Amino acid sequence: MTPQGRTEAETYRRGIANGEIPALSRAITLAESTLPEHRELAREIITWCLPHSGKSVRVGITGIPGVGKSSLIESLGLYLARERGKKIAVLAIDPTSSETGGSVLGDKIRMQELSRHKNVYIRPSPSSGSLGGVAKKTSDAVILCEAAGFDTILIETVGVGQSEITCHSMVDFFMLLMITGAGDDIQGIKRGIIERADAVVITKADGENRKNAELMRQEMEEALRFQRPPESGWIPRVHACSSVTGYGISEVWQCVAEYEKLCGENGYFAEKRRRQAKYRLHETLAQNLEDSFYGNKFVKKTIGKVEKEVVEGRTDPYTGAANLLDLYLEKLRLPSQT
Amino acid sequence: MTPQGRTEAETYRRGIANGEIPALSRAITLAESTLPEHRELAREIITWCLPHSGKSVRVGITGIPGVGKSSLIESLGLYLARERGKKIAVLAIDPTSSETGGSVLGDKIRMQELSRHKNVYIRPSPSSGSLGGVAKKTSDAVILCEAAGFDTILIETVGVGQSEITCHSMVDFFMLLMITGAGDDIQGIKRGIIERADAVVITKADGENRKNAELMRQEMEEALRFQRPPESGWIPRVHACSSVTGYGISEVWQCVAEYEKLCGENGYFAEKRRRQAKYRLHETLAQNLEDSFYGNKFVKKTIGKVEKEVVEGRTDPYTGAANLLDLYLEKLRLPSQT
Repeated sequence: MTPQGRTEAETYRRGIANGEIPALSRAITLAESTLPEHRELAREIITWCLPHSGKSVRVGITGIPGVGKSSLIESLGLYLARERGKKIAVLAIDPTSSETGGSVLGDKIRMQELSRHKNVYIRPSPSSGSLGGVAKKTSDAVILCEAAGFDTILIETVGVGQSEITCHSMVDFFMLLMITGAGDDIQGIKRGIIERADAVVITKADGENRKNAELMRQEMEEALRFQRPPESGWIPRVHACSSVTGYGISEVWQCVAEYEKLCGENGYFAEKRRRQAKYRLHETLAQNLEDSFYGNKFVKKTIGKVEKEVVEGRTDPYTGAANLLDLYLEKLRLPSQT
Repeated sequence: MTPQGRTEAETYRRGIANGEIPALSRAITLAESTLPEHRELAREIITWCLPHSGKSVRVGITGIPGVGKSSLIESLGLYLARERGKKIAVLAIDPTSSETGGSVLGDKIRMQELSRHKNVYIRPSPSSGSLGGVAKKTSDAVILCEAAGFDTILIETVGVGQSEITCHSMVDFFMLLMITGAGDDIQGIKRGIIERADAVVITKADGENRKNAELMRQEMEEALRFQRPPESGWIPRVHACSSVTGYGISEVWQCVAEYEKLCGENGYFAEKRRRQAKYRLHETLAQNLEDSFYGNKFVKKTIGKVEKEVVEGRTDPYTGAANLLDLYLEKLRLPSQT
């Protein structure tokens, strides 16, 4: 924390407090960086932002590729910005971006109109990064956006691996998009996503497809009846909508607003955020422990050998793990013995 | 390792080498124990067993409650014991047993005939235990059973939480049981289990249901076509069978045998086991690290306070985690400073 560092952090703080997008963008980039000096600066900024954050509604939006996530976000975002006066930040959890070249929000072309609105900030997902850090990076971005005055955070995630679970662990409201004709199997039902949804939204309910979408909506409503007992007091809803005609879009948001109201009143909204914070504490601890362990120079020097022994069956995994942990703890105790 | 301890371990080793069930059962109980002296003894026994293990085929069997897992294991087991001269050990991964009172293999009543066969060993799941330890306990039991001469390990798991993933990470062949009329959704498709299956088995293909079961088999075959590209070279199969009439039971095993042959020849069988060992090494490391951290007396004294600060929003989860890790590492370095 040099005096220069302080000045720099102060500049960021002021920019963010004023809702300046360039300052916000650069702060998110710092938080995504792997450079220690960037992370240190990011920590300082985020610590300051923390008391100014938390006042938005955070909505997770998931569904298989082709379901129309970007289109829904565009039409929902425009509705919220134009007719409800909301300030919207669109973020993405995309653990695959390093592999696929970033399909989620990789370019803003798919949300052109939305991205031009003055009350909207669209943050493309980082072009690379480890899955482990995705939760932290996105959480940091949420805090920064909230401190910059955004009251509605839409987090898009593609249904790959753990990304929905990660998303679910950081949003207030979790929305699963589905389309007709794609087989329920490969949509949210897979990996238990549907059980976590606060709303299922059948997209592309327009033209000839509208009738099928409505049928699907009814079927899903039937199916959802057998889901988890709602601890939140909220019964998951099913909506059909069209990003082309705008049909059902305001109802989708009405549903989020009703959730916010109900769970605000019964205390579940705050309770869920408290749980998420606690979850994030322990998740971060596990990650930090592993970072410390795998970053230890003695572990680095030895782990390849142990892996080889285990893979070749000369050591069992439990003995190998116990020996490596002993080495790590021993070296921490006696750091001078090289 | 007292001389007495050695003698005790030696007794276990001899018993296991002779295929004596009481010695095997007690050794598994030791491995499941939370007492340090039991675990130490178990480690000694398992280390000895390791070179004598690994020669079985390990089959995971999953499906929703009511799908007929026990019945299939009974009729498959009897077929294997009687007609193929196999020695069969039946284990269970049941993370819910502590909550529900142990529904999976909780009593042997459901496999009465099988349990009486001299070449069959059925191990009820432990009546309690943490989810974290489930993988280790079951892996230990597999090693012990193999060292005792069992050549076929059937691992039953109920579709709850992470149990299928845990099961998948330790078996050679993963079988998903399904029934007609239960909705594909809530069966294996949920949580992506179907993507991991080497075979889908439609149970209860008897009487009036046989036709429906065959129809479902065809549908599933269609659906499976679009699954993962088979790195193993093995195309997942779909079978229909009946534990009542015996219809299809030998075909189910034929399928496992063909998998074993194909993947034995192309090297995938051995490769998968190597990967599983490496996976278990890192999984165990993560678990041991957390045990060491959360077991640290200084962490224990402080963590409640930090959790409270995080939950109340006075500290962010990342700062809280960083502070706790610093405390842990500092105390390891300077253990005398209390």
